Amino acid sequence: MNASANNLPSRLDPFLRAEVEDLYARYSACVDSGHYEAWPGFFTEACTYKVIPRENHERGLPLATLAFESRAMLEDRVYGITQTLFHQPYYQRHSVSGILITEVTSSGIAVEANYLVIRTRSKALSEVFNTGRYIDRVVREDGSLRFAEKCCVFDSEMIPNSIIYPI
Amino acid sequence: MNASANNLPSRLDPFLRAEVEDLYARYSACVDSGHYEAWPGFFTEACTYKVIPRENHERGLPLATLAFESRAMLEDRVYGITQTLFHQPYYQRHSVSGILITEVTSSGIAVEANYLVIRTRSKALSEVFNTGRYIDRVVREDGSLRFAEKCCVFDSEMIPNSIIYPI
Amino acid sequence: MNASANNLPSRLDPFLRAEVEDLYARYSACVDSGHYEAWPGFFTEACTYKVIPRENHERGLPLATLAFESRAMLEDRVYGITQTLFHQPYYQRHSVSGILITEVTSSGIAVEANYLVIRTRSKALSEVFNTGRYIDRVVREDGSLRFAEKCCVFDSEMIPNSIIYPI
Repeated sequence: MNASANNLPSRLDPFLRAEVEDLYARYSACVDSGHYEAWPGFFTEACTYKVIPRENHERGLPLATLAFESRAMLEDRVYGITQTLFHQPYYQRHSVSGILITEVTSSGIAVEANYLVIRTRSKALSEVFNTGRYIDRVVREDGSLRFAEKCCVFDSEMIPNSIIYPI
Repeated sequence: MNASANNLPSRLDPFLRAEVEDLYARYSACVDSGHYEAWPGFFTEACTYKVIPRENHERGLPLATLAFESRAMLEDRVYGITQTLFHQPYYQRHSVSGILITEVTSSGIAVEANYLVIRTRSKALSEVFNTGRYIDRVVREDGSLRFAEKCCVFDSEMIPNSIIYPI
Repeated sequence: MNASANNLPSRLDPFLRAEVEDLYARYSACVDSGHYEAWPGFFTEACTYKVIPRENHERGLPLATLAFESRAMLEDRVYGITQTLFHQPYYQRHSVSGILITEVTSSGIAVEANYLVIRTRSKALSEVFNTGRYIDRVVREDGSLRFAEKCCVFDSEMIPNSIIYPI
């Protein structure tokens, strides 16, 4: 019942999968530990990062909850999170599953995955905060994988308060 | 500390694991995106698909919430979901984790995994809907892996309303 | 876009990853199925197992909710769970994701991962019970991987009732 190591489609290459899974694991570790200053480093300089409701995404409506179009804009966001945005702090905890490499081409690796973010506020029980699908494009840059595009398509129209930290 | 590539038990073969993990990732993507018409294609023609409470499963009681015994029955179910079953639509989002290959024999690959399904209804917050364990048998057919048996053993006796979409 | 199989850092070695992921999958299967008597066997004889609030962990405060310092103490805990601790039984279901090998040295494999435990009580809906991060050290012993250290750093100061079963 073994897979043949020959003629494998790239999405099944265990070496590539290890790198992709490691990228997502490091990304979750970064944003859940609150090391927001390291977050833009997961992206290429000319990148897009969007958080968009599923309904808009499926209807082709462009309206996004958050939309950034360069690493510099992500750095601005980090400044906002850590310095200027007034908000009640919370912990978040990602569960990223079903990482699916959908295409490997010269312009990058198309990756999708389900994500679930659990939020924990001070003196409160942990709760489901946001769930949806990552639709990403990953590229190799200086030997490392980075996100050239990250689109977080979330299922709920309702979000308990605002999304402050990176999804 | 590296694993020896020789004399590995099959459950640790990275090439087989890549195929199995890819199967589960594609399955989740299918049922969460609402492409129900593609769902029966994940199964062999003579398959079983069951959704059963943990209590019944552990006591050996056969009573299942859902039990289908062929791909044709799954196709009927899809017809029901999309055409005839009266229900309030909802989004679902799987988190499948801890994929465990328990046995590899000539009759297939025994696979178990934990699953969690988050449900999101219109104008409502996302919520824990159903969680439990997949106890599956996967076989290779025409070069692809398919489910010959899929048993979804869920922890809760109580389910918020009915299970409409595939788990 | 393939990873080079040469000069890979150990954390990206698919063979090692398969073994580590299999360890976590078997651990979850054990503690979620209620086979608590098998739980100490996942640890080395001289091990540490801790469950500690994130706030204490981040401030370097040693106060832990649970702290055991040998396999024998884990066996005592199992005796408590199954024989003496008065508690209302519940099912638990782990979702372990983002397994990240952070270091591979002669003294073991440093592994971190996000975990989420869903609890289901009799006649009740499933609910988020505990979420946080495993910070572990895994070693090879008699050919198998075991936990020499397992630290469960949980996000919430509030826990619905007590943590009875292993996280």
